[in-house]
Amino acid sequence: MGYPETFEGFMIEDQSQGPEFKRHTFKPKTFGDYDVDIKIECCGVCGSDVHTITGGWGAVPLPICVGHEIVGHAVKIGSKVKTVSPGDRVGVGAQVWSCLECAQCNNNNEQYCAHQVDTYGARYPAEADPDETITQGGFSSHIRVHEYSVFPIPDAIPSHLAAPMLCAGLTTWSPLVRAGVGRGQKVAVVGFGGLGHFAVLWASALGAEVTVISHSPAKKDDALKMGARNFVISNHAGWAAPYAYAFDFVLNTADMTHTFDISEYLSLCNINATFHQVGVPDEPLPVMSPVMFMRNGSSIGASHIGSRFECLAMLKLAAEKKLFPMVETIRMSEEGCKEAVGRVLKNKVRYRFTLTDFDEAFKSRA
Amino acid sequence: MGYPETFEGFMIEDQSQGPEFKRHTFKPKTFGDYDVDIKIECCGVCGSDVHTITGGWGAVPLPICVGHEIVGHAVKIGSKVKTVSPGDRVGVGAQVWSCLECAQCNNNNEQYCAHQVDTYGARYPAEADPDETITQGGFSSHIRVHEYSVFPIPDAIPSHLAAPMLCAGLTTWSPLVRAGVGRGQKVAVVGFGGLGHFAVLWASALGAEVTVISHSPAKKDDALKMGARNFVISNHAGWAAPYAYAFDFVLNTADMTHTFDISEYLSLCNINATFHQVGVPDEPLPVMSPVMFMRNGSSIGASHIGSRFECLAMLKLAAEKKLFPMVETIRMSEEGCKEAVGRVLKNKVRYRFTLTDFDEAFKSRA
Repeated sequence: MGYPETFEGFMIEDQSQGPEFKRHTFKPKTFGDYDVDIKIECCGVCGSDVHTITGGWGAVPLPICVGHEIVGHAVKIGSKVKTVSPGDRVGVGAQVWSCLECAQCNNNNEQYCAHQVDTYGARYPAEADPDETITQGGFSSHIRVHEYSVFPIPDAIPSHLAAPMLCAGLTTWSPLVRAGVGRGQKVAVVGFGGLGHFAVLWASALGAEVTVISHSPAKKDDALKMGARNFVISNHAGWAAPYAYAFDFVLNTADMTHTFDISEYLSLCNINATFHQVGVPDEPLPVMSPVMFMRNGSSIGASHIGSRFECLAMLKLAAEKKLFPMVETIRMSEEGCKEAVGRVLKNKVRYRFTLTDFDEAFKSRA
Repeated sequence: MGYPETFEGFMIEDQSQGPEFKRHTFKPKTFGDYDVDIKIECCGVCGSDVHTITGGWGAVPLPICVGHEIVGHAVKIGSKVKTVSPGDRVGVGAQVWSCLECAQCNNNNEQYCAHQVDTYGARYPAEADPDETITQGGFSSHIRVHEYSVFPIPDAIPSHLAAPMLCAGLTTWSPLVRAGVGRGQKVAVVGFGGLGHFAVLWASALGAEVTVISHSPAKKDDALKMGARNFVISNHAGWAAPYAYAFDFVLNTADMTHTFDISEYLSLCNINATFHQVGVPDEPLPVMSPVMFMRNGSSIGASHIGSRFECLAMLKLAAEKKLFPMVETIRMSEEGCKEAVGRVLKNKVRYRFTLTDFDEAFKSRA
């Protein structure tokens, strides 16, 4: 068998073995009236993939095919699909389904739908798929996705640069836009990695004065290149003191938050500002007390990706202003996956990987 | 000696002895050009007083005179005072000084001034008082306060009802107003005690549909009387499930938050809503993880009292609409203080105490 009955992917069989990928075939969900089949051209490598592979975020159904920064071409569309045509270049992020009936779905908050389905490792509800298939991600030949989670990619954005926008890009874009970040505001971006470099790109483009807070002095030049105005090195005691009350929004993109002195980071917040997290550490946050927030009326929160509405706006702005991430490419293969994931694990990437050359890796695919 | 050289108060000598009050004289700060001396008529009893007396919030300089819900009459004003005249009925809350020069002070956020001075147990900076006196609160004959922290009390509000507004009232008013609570919004108030009953009063008056979440079924009638539309009893497993995403703002007025299942309370939040705390438990909050916030993009925060600007607006609305708290009065004396604090400690008050009859307690005062 092969497409359309089965798809092929490089999968993880055992979370205790680290990034060891094996080629498998797997059965996608039952094709529905609103589904789009996408022949994958390239796929970004996300911190979530790494946490999933290593088990840092817990057990997942195995074998699993990760990858949720997917760009490809529509090869088949369901009878009721209206927003995609065969041949369109399209993208898929970290979500493949939501009910489209609840208050959240009807309010451009489908990423918070109580029934939403992640791109990999999640079981479809029976209403979406009679087989209740477990989803598999984009380190694969094809993916089948409801059109609502399929985003047309503007011509001006090369595929390997569009891919990381679909998770890392959107995950940082959404909270910045929801916080009303714009001209006249000061934004701190904590951490300058895959998420952080996107946050700087977007916040600068939205008009804010951006300060990067990082342990790594070596990243300063890249941070300024992406639009940061200031670069604060946080690797010594007392680094935060000069920045008390300094920022209208603090976007924490690091996933080592469990090692932070949270009081120190909250002290950066202007009155009633938020320390907002988009990175998820493997460990819980350090213990907090209300008093820590009472010094400036601050709060701590987090968000999950972004909505379709926000994704389309982000892609439009990126295309118009040529706002592109810094991306390294690696050819798709078992070894390519292993290298990419291994280097993300060691923080040895500037600043995002996209796996490419899927035609070569999946030669026999339809 | 006596006024104006010394004031008299009922003070705590030892935090390990519980609410044992002894009459002491104490020396106030040096009188300054902007200071107002107030002859105290009555004083509310606040949860903060209890946490201070028992040491739950840590050690304080002893002996200490608590009380920061003070109403009285101005008996002397400094040469530069413009907002108060001798004889005016005025109030003082939980703050007696701020620098009035920093960004926070110039932005109606003087409660977040890095140099702000609490009404009791705090040391004045030399610029405010060459003697750097430690402040003493309102369980006393007089208090000396910078006019910026002295609020004229509208005639329509009786003194014993105005007193608790100055801390409990303002502490709940400020976050509601800053969250933009109003018509068309759903607000949950967690806990229905001194703070909670004010929160219900204000949120209802601002136009929101208010739901009280409480362990105590017996408080339902009072909650509805104060303006609540709904009353949810939280003393059984699964109580929160029907209220997922239900509230645009959750104001937690309880001080037992360390015993909460925080995930359960966050689940009440509508998308991107805040679980906001005004109570401070003696223990840190339960351990949290960013994932807890990612289900609805919620956040957790806290605030500290409110600004002068907010206090004046609150008093104006309360006077115009006759929005009054439920208050029990107790005559001022060593025993009265002990009884009031003891009953607050045991949660045996509906819903706030005001200590009255200060003329009797401080017969010899000027």
